[in-house]
Amino acid sequence: MRSLRKTVLLAILVSVVLVLALLHSWPTRTYTTVDVWQRPGPSVERHLEERLPELDHRLSNIPFHVRDSVASLLARNGCICEGESGGVNLPFAQLLFPRVSAHPLHTAFEASELEEMKRRRAKEYKSFQKRSKTPADVLIIAEANSPLQYPTQGVESSHSLYFAFHHLQINITATLGTLNVAAEVDGVKIKGDGEMHMSLSSSLLPNLNRQLQFVTYTNTLFHPSTADTVQFETEGHQAVFSVKIRHGVTPKLYNTGSKGDYNVSALVTIATKTFLRYDKLQDLIDSVRRYYPTVTIVIADDSENPKTMSGPYIEHYIMPFGKGWFAGRNLAVSQVTTKYVLWVDDDFIFTANTKLEKLVDVLEKTTLDLVGGAVREATGYTATYRQTISIEPGEEDGDCLHMRRGFHHVIQGFPNCVVTDGVINFFLARTDKVQQVGFDPRLARVAHLEFFIDGLGSLHVGSCDDVIVNHATKIRLPWVSQSESDKTYAKFRYPPASSDATHTKNGLLFFKNRFQCLTRN
Amino acid sequence: MRSLRKTVLLAILVSVVLVLALLHSWPTRTYTTVDVWQRPGPSVERHLEERLPELDHRLSNIPFHVRDSVASLLARNGCICEGESGGVNLPFAQLLFPRVSAHPLHTAFEASELEEMKRRRAKEYKSFQKRSKTPADVLIIAEANSPLQYPTQGVESSHSLYFAFHHLQINITATLGTLNVAAEVDGVKIKGDGEMHMSLSSSLLPNLNRQLQFVTYTNTLFHPSTADTVQFETEGHQAVFSVKIRHGVTPKLYNTGSKGDYNVSALVTIATKTFLRYDKLQDLIDSVRRYYPTVTIVIADDSENPKTMSGPYIEHYIMPFGKGWFAGRNLAVSQVTTKYVLWVDDDFIFTANTKLEKLVDVLEKTTLDLVGGAVREATGYTATYRQTISIEPGEEDGDCLHMRRGFHHVIQGFPNCVVTDGVINFFLARTDKVQQVGFDPRLARVAHLEFFIDGLGSLHVGSCDDVIVNHATKIRLPWVSQSESDKTYAKFRYPPASSDATHTKNGLLFFKNRFQCLTRN
Repeated sequence: MRSLRKTVLLAILVSVVLVLALLHSWPTRTYTTVDVWQRPGPSVERHLEERLPELDHRLSNIPFHVRDSVASLLARNGCICEGESGGVNLPFAQLLFPRVSAHPLHTAFEASELEEMKRRRAKEYKSFQKRSKTPADVLIIAEANSPLQYPTQGVESSHSLYFAFHHLQINITATLGTLNVAAEVDGVKIKGDGEMHMSLSSSLLPNLNRQLQFVTYTNTLFHPSTADTVQFETEGHQAVFSVKIRHGVTPKLYNTGSKGDYNVSALVTIATKTFLRYDKLQDLIDSVRRYYPTVTIVIADDSENPKTMSGPYIEHYIMPFGKGWFAGRNLAVSQVTTKYVLWVDDDFIFTANTKLEKLVDVLEKTTLDLVGGAVREATGYTATYRQTISIEPGEEDGDCLHMRRGFHHVIQGFPNCVVTDGVINFFLARTDKVQQVGFDPRLARVAHLEFFIDGLGSLHVGSCDDVIVNHATKIRLPWVSQSESDKTYAKFRYPPASSDATHTKNGLLFFKNRFQCLTRN
Repeated sequence: MRSLRKTVLLAILVSVVLVLALLHSWPTRTYTTVDVWQRPGPSVERHLEERLPELDHRLSNIPFHVRDSVASLLARNGCICEGESGGVNLPFAQLLFPRVSAHPLHTAFEASELEEMKRRRAKEYKSFQKRSKTPADVLIIAEANSPLQYPTQGVESSHSLYFAFHHLQINITATLGTLNVAAEVDGVKIKGDGEMHMSLSSSLLPNLNRQLQFVTYTNTLFHPSTADTVQFETEGHQAVFSVKIRHGVTPKLYNTGSKGDYNVSALVTIATKTFLRYDKLQDLIDSVRRYYPTVTIVIADDSENPKTMSGPYIEHYIMPFGKGWFAGRNLAVSQVTTKYVLWVDDDFIFTANTKLEKLVDVLEKTTLDLVGGAVREATGYTATYRQTISIEPGEEDGDCLHMRRGFHHVIQGFPNCVVTDGVINFFLARTDKVQQVGFDPRLARVAHLEFFIDGLGSLHVGSCDDVIVNHATKIRLPWVSQSESDKTYAKFRYPPASSDATHTKNGLLFFKNRFQCLTRN
């Protein structure tokens, strides 16, 4: 009986809430409809055509002599997949006289499926372009002897626009927002105030210019990040400029703790990925603890029968068996909460030369996002593995990717450090930047530079050779038999070249990044 | 004896490799030094001052009448933290007449530490600005009656520049690269070819203009993404435009499988985070399998004594105990390899109304990155939780964050869908975009809209109310006692408001995103 009354009571309560909720969720303002379909905005196309410099026929018949050296630098929109023809094939030849090799990437697919792959890639690329292209990328020319003075760059939505000009009537046209005046000047006639097309006229030129200083733009067709191309014309003259429309971008700041020396434990998290090699991992942890007893170590583990790794400042994550190398790296960095993350392989050993403070100092004082160190092999050879990466635009077949050993510049004030595009498996980086670029979990096995390729254009990369970590020997002494786990590890980590792994890699370069060719030395 | 010979042999081999390696790593070209220290480039500042429209004194004394309605829209660079003053406080008042409440965020810190926090935040923000600001953001004005014709936008490094003008001598100055000519025109004198400053002169105007068409810009001071401000002057006239310098951005394309209807299993991965509630999780999985038997489900689990969840297309990740809500979400999405990821809470239930194909269709046909659905409560009330988010610029104290229920536009062709800034906990999104924005693992407990705040300006968000998932009831019937796991869960998931969780949230909004105030209704 009581419970029945309770239920009734509840029912009533619920229905009241429901009605109120409905009442409230009733739209109180009318909303316009927006077209966000994947078509290039008409305005973009139109202005592109309008604005391209028209051929001047008086000029076209003036003779000239081409300079191949420079002309060859101009974007050809077409790249050929060729390396350097090989000389004699001595042992260590590649090491002594590094030659450029070229790898066509379509070979990752069967001839039968290739056409289908190209078709799909083209489709995906088209929609990528439609999503990423904004009117702010269109070429705009300021014409000579225009009486109009106007901003050509740097105007943001809801700023006031400044103009100056010398005619008595002027028309302004926007496409994604409305034009208003923040103040009215005497003796100026305003038409279309609050609309996308506004015209101003006056018999007094100064007044008209004064009025123009109060013209404002308000975005009405919402988009999180685009640009409106505003037209600005008077008798016979026309100018175009774009107004950036975007949400204020919020920073991602990290609290780096109180001032003084760098507190590595507060600033840095060490991230690694392990698979079977718990002995090596333990050596790494022990070596880290010798120098950084309280720095957090994040471990991603996709072993079949994972052992529990525990202890202070150790975070052990267990993945499904054999999920793979980049999946593990991506997991590890996804869990970092400090400003910086240090990537190490599970078979590295910290020594007195592994001074993380130095790497932190570089990132704190420069605009770099990521700085690599050096790895010393048991042989004593120390590697920084610096690579420059460049992209040569191609056509439908895709672009050409070029990787070369080397770097761009030495860094002022850090004689041991350089600016480059790719570094070795031992680096310190801004956590938010690494998380933005990410390690593509589709890369299951041998992979490394793929991360730097995905980071091109967003990662500012450096490399210092005076911060060194040791690498547990990889030279197998003939008379030392390999441990069981090492054997299994090798089987997974280093599959035969012809295997799926290489195919997956080239397949991704071909499809995901839309390359047709990779050349490297 | 034999092993000794072996060792010697090995030693020799190693030293040979070492020598060769050294030889090879010897720098073969000389590198310049670059200044990447965190200072604003002088050129940026200089041009900023130079280019700002100078006050015209003839104009300043023309009278005008301010229009507050519009003037108030102009960026004031200062925001006040105030909500709507409350009326009567009836039950459901907030639901019926939603009022705007304001939350000052500095309260997340003790008065004693606040000043120190502000100091640190200011420092971090300064370096963020130095890293993210490029000359391409500076305001540039095209002056009236200039004889120069030049590009004002859209020029990229290593493109050729087009000019036209009407004087016989012209100077061009770059700051991050060199100017060359791709061809030489008869009767034109070229000075400073291949340098940062080039001047051209000729007695024949057409020839000079022809020559200008062959002027090229080559970036020499490498930076992955910046802009060079090129000056372009002739007697008495000067123009400035910026050349974009950046690595070609590579797309991240996904192979969506062969054409035809949408293959949800090939396109979508379902990601969720669980903690203790295995019964609910199992209900979710069963309900999913009823409609999508082969779609992959990624589960992040930070329970203290994790049960193994296994089965076809199920990936179970085990985290350290209590790592938290966003850490789990970030882990789950870090493992997704399909084009789209669907976020669901572990207490959702799929029904016949949970048509993922509809959401896929919206993302495939529009430029949206993320589209939310609707969640139906046991009461029958269906919520989409649409929010618009805006940022009002403030000064040193930080910006003001405004969240309001509602949306921007209805989407053309999808009458049930709208464009907005934030949606409910049930959404389909482009995997690469979600991975870029990320779920900040520092948010351990109750958190959701923080993801959309971090995504402002990069995520294009929509919401459709015709794709519905059910929510396992949360109304606790008085006579049904709560299960043990539910109790423990509630303890962790919903800590008292005064607790660390809220402090952490407000602290992050204050420090990480640099807000001073949050207002919402």
